[in-house]
Amino acid sequence: MYYQLISQCAQALKNLEICLDKAEQHAAAKKFDADVLMTSRLAPDMKDFIYQVQSACDYVKAAAAWLSGQTPPKHEDNEQTIDEVRARIRKTVAFAESVKEAQYAEASERKVSLSWAPRGKTIGGEDYLLQITIPNVYFHIVMAYALLRHNGVDIGKMDFLGPINWIDAGPD
Amino acid sequence: MYYQLISQCAQALKNLEICLDKAEQHAAAKKFDADVLMTSRLAPDMKDFIYQVQSACDYVKAAAAWLSGQTPPKHEDNEQTIDEVRARIRKTVAFAESVKEAQYAEASERKVSLSWAPRGKTIGGEDYLLQITIPNVYFHIVMAYALLRHNGVDIGKMDFLGPINWIDAGPD
Repeated sequence: MYYQLISQCAQALKNLEICLDKAEQHAAAKKFDADVLMTSRLAPDMKDFIYQVQSACDYVKAAAAWLSGQTPPKHEDNEQTIDEVRARIRKTVAFAESVKEAQYAEASERKVSLSWAPRGKTIGGEDYLLQITIPNVYFHIVMAYALLRHNGVDIGKMDFLGPINWIDAGPD
Repeated sequence: MYYQLISQCAQALKNLEICLDKAEQHAAAKKFDADVLMTSRLAPDMKDFIYQVQSACDYVKAAAAWLSGQTPPKHEDNEQTIDEVRARIRKTVAFAESVKEAQYAEASERKVSLSWAPRGKTIGGEDYLLQITIPNVYFHIVMAYALLRHNGVDIGKMDFLGPINWIDAGPD
């Protein structure tokens, strides 16, 4: 399920673009610069909106790369505007989508080294996906969503969830 | 990976208990009633802290039940205090932990009906887990975390992530 789970994380990033559209509409209606939202925070000692998106992107990018045996492409953290944030999301999604299902064939046997791991420690592929990638991707995406919602942007849970593969229930 | 993914969602709920401990410590230090935090919101037209926890619990409980061929136990939404919220988390985790790995054997062939699905639609087990359960569980847990953080509780990302299965990196 590596491919499916990482694809869903990339989809969650794409869904954030809808939230950015609505942030721009809100800013236009209220006549303020949408980029003001990019430095918003929920607490003074917490990272801002741009960081939340950068971090979500990096966890998706890293998982797609390490679990398919690649070194992640380097993306500089220099975004300042909503358009630049959108570009960061798009290049991350493009990289994640470049990795095909077969490339994750050995994902569960891989070990992943994290800069913030305890000294001399690493983590196996499955635990990396379940305990690091998924929680961190959603943490930062939901925090970005929370920042926009807290600032009055008219977004809802369905924007966050994005497309859902409903199927016909059939008789009974 | 159904068992592993649902276990990780249950673990994320458990981690929230650490955040509740810190919320109580913060309230004691600042001399306010910790239950005040239970009705906090990030926006006036958004659900409060208690709802966020109830909802996260219900998505975990529903996934553990439906994907193992069971009807979810009924948990009334009547929590008002931090102790009651803690109890809700504990009974949810206890139910999720009662489901053994073998019980998910047919999870991918199951279809799950959701009260809010479009008319006549249902969803397959894998999409239910990836597109409904995981995003919703993390959405509501991170929102609960964001509410505490916004209100000054001294919690950090490691509280949210909880235990991580680090392994020895070995030579080189």
